Amino acid sequence: MIELNYENCLSSKIGSQGISREKLGSLEETARKHLEKIKEKKPGFMQLPLRFKEAEKIKKEAEDYKKFKNFVVIGIGGSALGNITLQSALNDYFYNYKKNNPYPRFFVLDNVDPHWTKSLSDLIDPSDTLFNVITKSGSTAETLANFFYFLKQLKDSTENWRDNLVITTGKKGFLKRFSSENGIKTYPVPENVGGRYSVLSEVGLFPAACCGIDTVKLLEGAVDAMENEHVPVLYAALQYYFYKNKGKNINVFMPYSKRLESAADWFRQLWAESLGKNQNTGPTPVKAVGTTDQHSQIQLYMEGPNDKTVSFLEVFERNPEMKIDYPDHFLGGKSLRELFNAECKGTREALTRAKRPNMTFEIPKIDAYNIGELLYQLQASCVISGRMMGIDPFNQPGVELGKRLAYEIMGKEE
Amino acid sequence: MIELNYENCLSSKIGSQGISREKLGSLEETARKHLEKIKEKKPGFMQLPLRFKEAEKIKKEAEDYKKFKNFVVIGIGGSALGNITLQSALNDYFYNYKKNNPYPRFFVLDNVDPHWTKSLSDLIDPSDTLFNVITKSGSTAETLANFFYFLKQLKDSTENWRDNLVITTGKKGFLKRFSSENGIKTYPVPENVGGRYSVLSEVGLFPAACCGIDTVKLLEGAVDAMENEHVPVLYAALQYYFYKNKGKNINVFMPYSKRLESAADWFRQLWAESLGKNQNTGPTPVKAVGTTDQHSQIQLYMEGPNDKTVSFLEVFERNPEMKIDYPDHFLGGKSLRELFNAECKGTREALTRAKRPNMTFEIPKIDAYNIGELLYQLQASCVISGRMMGIDPFNQPGVELGKRLAYEIMGKEE
Repeated sequence: MIELNYENCLSSKIGSQGISREKLGSLEETARKHLEKIKEKKPGFMQLPLRFKEAEKIKKEAEDYKKFKNFVVIGIGGSALGNITLQSALNDYFYNYKKNNPYPRFFVLDNVDPHWTKSLSDLIDPSDTLFNVITKSGSTAETLANFFYFLKQLKDSTENWRDNLVITTGKKGFLKRFSSENGIKTYPVPENVGGRYSVLSEVGLFPAACCGIDTVKLLEGAVDAMENEHVPVLYAALQYYFYKNKGKNINVFMPYSKRLESAADWFRQLWAESLGKNQNTGPTPVKAVGTTDQHSQIQLYMEGPNDKTVSFLEVFERNPEMKIDYPDHFLGGKSLRELFNAECKGTREALTRAKRPNMTFEIPKIDAYNIGELLYQLQASCVISGRMMGIDPFNQPGVELGKRLAYEIMGKEE
Repeated sequence: MIELNYENCLSSKIGSQGISREKLGSLEETARKHLEKIKEKKPGFMQLPLRFKEAEKIKKEAEDYKKFKNFVVIGIGGSALGNITLQSALNDYFYNYKKNNPYPRFFVLDNVDPHWTKSLSDLIDPSDTLFNVITKSGSTAETLANFFYFLKQLKDSTENWRDNLVITTGKKGFLKRFSSENGIKTYPVPENVGGRYSVLSEVGLFPAACCGIDTVKLLEGAVDAMENEHVPVLYAALQYYFYKNKGKNINVFMPYSKRLESAADWFRQLWAESLGKNQNTGPTPVKAVGTTDQHSQIQLYMEGPNDKTVSFLEVFERNPEMKIDYPDHFLGGKSLRELFNAECKGTREALTRAKRPNMTFEIPKIDAYNIGELLYQLQASCVISGRMMGIDPFNQPGVELGKRLAYEIMGKEE
């Protein structure tokens, strides 16, 4: 079970910058009421953890795609971030370098930098590659542009190009038509699930299953999170309070874990796109990674304006220990694990002495079960926070204008 | 020449959220005066671009290290971020995957996550690897912990372990003694140059040279930036104004370039550690990458609180174009390059219509010359901004407490 340690948010610890136990209790009650109302409407993401049948089917079907040498996700935003998160957290950091890997190498192309697309194109043989094109609308320009580029490469390299494509998309749109006309294997994006809430749907499960991740365990962890609501309720109450009452317009999300670095990128989208609304609402999520960012951001967090909360993620896994074998130095005989957790504890304590509110997600272990639990907890927290702030956490109207202007430049007619 | 387009900061464009031409002119004058005073004190980083003799020497010496299969930087913060920046910007995205690469594969280990260190340890053969241990103080715990770990691996794998080490450190400290006692090849970190200002010193130049980057061109670009001071002066004036007068406590740094993504991490350290001081000063730097973060952060930037400036970096390189070859779609016949720049332009225009101040570094091309110029421009801007804000941009007293507490937990005696 992942717990949230909020001790360093209390006014007993950080004085007037903190929250009293009474106030927190009453906000938790409010948060819980919002959660009940949210559940009544049965939002899509809350149904995803229960789809074990679909997850089993995907897992089985994924077997057919392990033969490919490369697996390339073409997608952006919610179609990319969840996939990167699962891969980074649950597979080896150097997964792609492994010889005799029974699974394909894994790449996510979530930008249209021509240099990057060219580099990938130079690296892979399209005929050895499965392209999983993911866009709910079926019309995302960046995704289509990269898809069109590789489609030509693919057609030039193999007659059976259709076998190298899997399309994950909604019920309508360009890609849905394309896949029907060409008989391409297609996965649905559930209609009532938006990109940033879709990691536990086909969007995230199919690529993960193809890379050997236990997708059923992901759902089991999420179910656990559904059944134990106190962490989302508590995190929503705290974040609401510090944003609305204490002017903390920055929410630093700081895992002490290299494997959770991408989860921080995923969190940034979740928090920013869900809560940044209506001209005056929206804390800015900031990604940081411990201990690395102690040597980059902690100076600011310690001595700069008191305009932030810091959410740490600490992992209490024993293995690997990685002993430091050097005599005559205070680190000798200790382990990397001990140093890592000591740095987290030291930083947390220093921030607390400087009266900076901070809280810690305590994660027993990084595995599929705990990652499923964590991602669901954060999604639920976000939706509750949004409702407490009086905004709609499921839409993103502000992204349309820039997109339309770009399409006009590219010659698209209305 | 890199230029800064500041049109979308003007009150003629964004009304009361903007700055008038008169005010900007007067702030530029102030900024220029500060710059003159700064130059009188001859800060270390301003001397680095002129060290062509040292750069040539490093380049020549680097030849001896190309024989290694792997080059591993062990360092953190300022000893890591510049190296990652140069490598990401100037070598191919899949540099490490290249077969018959005349240069070693390149890794930077800037954390003590035991999983990550173990993954790297499983991947490389220490006897084929050059370890460049970088720490100015010579006593950074994370760096020493990883060093001690690999030192044992190295000694176990080869008798000539000394040949696989290069140490980059200051005049004093544990590592300096270690390298003297063991006759290890050592590069100095210039005494008057702090970590976040050290990319153009031995810290950044040696690893870059070993990976085939034209380090002399880097310096030439920086010299160009020294001689054309208007971009740093302008950027400092604008950032000062929006932070102090318009309550923009967040500085979003958003390259439209995958290759400049790591430069944004480097910028985060520069800005946060230099300017986050004295309990009330310090805009929070935020990294974003276009177009990717249009699908993650732009909703917040468009509709959330008007508490940010956005600094875009746009690249106007023609090659590679990467044509999109698909008929019957508005993207057909266009190129990834055109789409990339259209998205940047569309986003900028949308933010401007929403009265959000934004500016754009216009970069003709990503090469060693321009990267040298850009990094120097940003460092100079930062120091000028700091002086305008009345703080010391060269120290970082706020990082000490957390470090001390961590060391106590690890059993270090005073």
